[in-house]
Amino acid sequence: MPENLAISHSWPELRSVLTSIVGEQNCLFDPQEIAPYCEDWRQVHKGSTPAVVRPACTDEVASLVRMCAQRRIPIVPQGGNTSLVDGATPSAEGNEIVLSLSRMNKVRDLDLVNLTLTVEAGITLKAAQEAALAEDCMLPLSMGSEGSAQIGGALSTNAGGNNTVRYGNARDLVLGLEVVLPDAEIWNGLRRLRKDNTGYCLRQLFVGAEGTLGIITAAVLKLVPRPHDVAVAFCAVPSEQAALDLFMLCRGRHYNSIQAFEYMCGPGIDLVLKHIPGTQFPLAKPAGHYALVELADYSPHAGLREKLEDVLGNAMDAGLLQDAVLAGSSAERASLWRLREEQSEAQKREAASVKNDISVPVSKVAEFLVRAGAACECQFPGVRVIPYGHMGDGNIHFNLLPAPGVGNSTFLKQTEAIMDAVNEVVRQLDGSFSAEHGIGRVKPYMMEEWRGGAELATMRRIKAALDPLGIMNPGKVLPGEPTL
Amino acid sequence: MPENLAISHSWPELRSVLTSIVGEQNCLFDPQEIAPYCEDWRQVHKGSTPAVVRPACTDEVASLVRMCAQRRIPIVPQGGNTSLVDGATPSAEGNEIVLSLSRMNKVRDLDLVNLTLTVEAGITLKAAQEAALAEDCMLPLSMGSEGSAQIGGALSTNAGGNNTVRYGNARDLVLGLEVVLPDAEIWNGLRRLRKDNTGYCLRQLFVGAEGTLGIITAAVLKLVPRPHDVAVAFCAVPSEQAALDLFMLCRGRHYNSIQAFEYMCGPGIDLVLKHIPGTQFPLAKPAGHYALVELADYSPHAGLREKLEDVLGNAMDAGLLQDAVLAGSSAERASLWRLREEQSEAQKREAASVKNDISVPVSKVAEFLVRAGAACECQFPGVRVIPYGHMGDGNIHFNLLPAPGVGNSTFLKQTEAIMDAVNEVVRQLDGSFSAEHGIGRVKPYMMEEWRGGAELATMRRIKAALDPLGIMNPGKVLPGEPTL
Repeated sequence: MPENLAISHSWPELRSVLTSIVGEQNCLFDPQEIAPYCEDWRQVHKGSTPAVVRPACTDEVASLVRMCAQRRIPIVPQGGNTSLVDGATPSAEGNEIVLSLSRMNKVRDLDLVNLTLTVEAGITLKAAQEAALAEDCMLPLSMGSEGSAQIGGALSTNAGGNNTVRYGNARDLVLGLEVVLPDAEIWNGLRRLRKDNTGYCLRQLFVGAEGTLGIITAAVLKLVPRPHDVAVAFCAVPSEQAALDLFMLCRGRHYNSIQAFEYMCGPGIDLVLKHIPGTQFPLAKPAGHYALVELADYSPHAGLREKLEDVLGNAMDAGLLQDAVLAGSSAERASLWRLREEQSEAQKREAASVKNDISVPVSKVAEFLVRAGAACECQFPGVRVIPYGHMGDGNIHFNLLPAPGVGNSTFLKQTEAIMDAVNEVVRQLDGSFSAEHGIGRVKPYMMEEWRGGAELATMRRIKAALDPLGIMNPGKVLPGEPTL
Repeated sequence: MPENLAISHSWPELRSVLTSIVGEQNCLFDPQEIAPYCEDWRQVHKGSTPAVVRPACTDEVASLVRMCAQRRIPIVPQGGNTSLVDGATPSAEGNEIVLSLSRMNKVRDLDLVNLTLTVEAGITLKAAQEAALAEDCMLPLSMGSEGSAQIGGALSTNAGGNNTVRYGNARDLVLGLEVVLPDAEIWNGLRRLRKDNTGYCLRQLFVGAEGTLGIITAAVLKLVPRPHDVAVAFCAVPSEQAALDLFMLCRGRHYNSIQAFEYMCGPGIDLVLKHIPGTQFPLAKPAGHYALVELADYSPHAGLREKLEDVLGNAMDAGLLQDAVLAGSSAERASLWRLREEQSEAQKREAASVKNDISVPVSKVAEFLVRAGAACECQFPGVRVIPYGHMGDGNIHFNLLPAPGVGNSTFLKQTEAIMDAVNEVVRQLDGSFSAEHGIGRVKPYMMEEWRGGAELATMRRIKAALDPLGIMNPGKVLPGEPTL
């Protein structure tokens, strides 16, 4: 029995209320069943909760919130639990209830003329994508975790991913939301309108709020026609600046079809080839820097392969490109993409890493890579700088691994110092310390320094106005929230 | 001397404080000089103010807000004063100061790699567009009022316009904002980042808030490459549904290049030809319904004219099209566009009108036109139904003119009844009563019915949290705000 809850509540009574709302089989009390809901994806944080509740519908979510508000019990909304900043797990104190949206996973509507998809929050990103593809449309939100990440979480964290360079972040794809507010009222804002100027834009407040202002239960998302011609190239480039120049060239020539432009470095590719079975190096010889370019068009006759070959030929003439390979089939495309998508997993298998999910203006991204790399190598001799990421968005996952021979725990003691060194460069280049992963429980301490003053004060005012009891995902996003 | 202000303030003292902040020549006290700032664009509302102040920089705006907050003097931020819902003029009571952003009209930065433009709030939309064009880029926000509308107002009202079908609303183009908050703090959120997940998305709260939460003083806007191939066709179509089907055909074939799809009706074109000198009917014979299609591409070799001819040929074969003309030059393009852009002016010259700026899901827009037209003709015999607008966005300006022989004042007495009849159909089709014009002073009374309950309650909480004194543009957006 959870001690903290026992202080203020009658546990048997609470247990019976929870089961009365969602049914016995949808309340988990067994520690073993509960455990996966309490640990974050990176396995760094272990929380504790007396109960995981799995409502089936919006009304059940509202009943749960009402019950919790009456008793001042904090709620942690949880989707696929793939947060990289520990945004979806309960605290270690054991006084927060986990509300899993997994059972709310229906497609409510797909409108081919309006190009919108209405889904419940607990549907996985992949299932939502497949619902769109079945109607020859595409939901243009894609990321490594899409098999388990759920729409509610993707919206609550304003997920980015691989197609952002063309379609924007999750925020840019949302037309409407349904949200259970902290006072248990249901806001039905599931509007499917391309234009609607009727007061404050609440949906954009809940998107990216990481569940601290309410629980997203359903959403209306924009779709685009499904691409029928896709061309992918894996390129060796001589420098960070050449990678950026190559992006500029591809974007300038094919603004309408460039769908991804990803950066990788030599050591990052080496780690993938070392640790990920079945991966192959597709070029004749290794290079210091790589870029993955993807073009896509709705017409099957867009001739993108020839267009990509052509622009890469120009890049070679201009000295921006050392070598490149174009995928000749969808299997080859997948194989080239694996070299990018397995970067994180390969690093995980190699050693512990210090991760920096940063962004700078696109115009500064090459300079950032050079300067942040030099700063780290100077301040932490031997450290392995292994950045990769969405260069076309100015978003780099600037990761570092320990010097050869240095153990993980020794290395991780330098985490804050390394992050400081990286962030110093980010700051000088007008960048952000969290590009797409959000704040969660890991980064609230950085908010005061980066967003302090008028901005953080305004966020706190909004939090206090919408969630005066502080029951919504406490300890996330905002630093030093009053504890209950 | 303004009576209401005199009650609580020493007018000579206030006058001297205002001039000390912005300088004598930037404070207008003379009633004749002040008059244009007090009357709305539609010339329906005449307000009153003791002073118009014209700050030169953000610090001056902050000083003015601080001074007003201390004295509880309400502030009306004003840009180009082109609001169609009277969102930018002071009340008739004469106790509100008008803060004009017109002098803050500088381009602060243009980043061609990042594709961003940083401008001050008082720059006109047209001047901002021209700054982008000078660098072979385009600011994809365009509307009839762009010569006088200012960026600050366009953002505060989340302006839509003609290119929304491709590029979204003003909201979709904003990466960063600088805002003077109601407590006179300056929030510098002028970030130029494509990805930045660091807490609540404040910029999207100020966009569309119509100046009721703070004063936007500068913004970072997304640019796109300038189109170098543009094709425009003016089409006669047999029905509302045929117009929508034509849109579907054009969008399906040319999703990447469709930039505008506008609807007009026969009587609307007739009024333009009657009232606007120099306009010409471009087809062989009149029709009941018309569509204007524009395709644009960044490449000068996109062959859009041939592509548009081709898709229109298919449309004709499918019975969706009766006749069409393609512009052969930029002068011809402008001439075709005039038939659309002069709709509002032509109606104004004909008679008084009841205007409904509504939206429905794109899939419902033809049904809306038919049903709303029938409802009005049935309930108001002889009324002239003259809709036009952004069909590709589901946004119709559903305007009505008096029956022949009925005077303006008699007709306008039916305004609310007519709006009710239209809105009844809008509601049945899940639409909105204000698509792009916003709420201003004209429509707050409709908010309770359409956005009441959890949504309006949340808006009120936000307003109270950010502007507890209620000094920011009172009487706009929210109904029944406490007066000072």
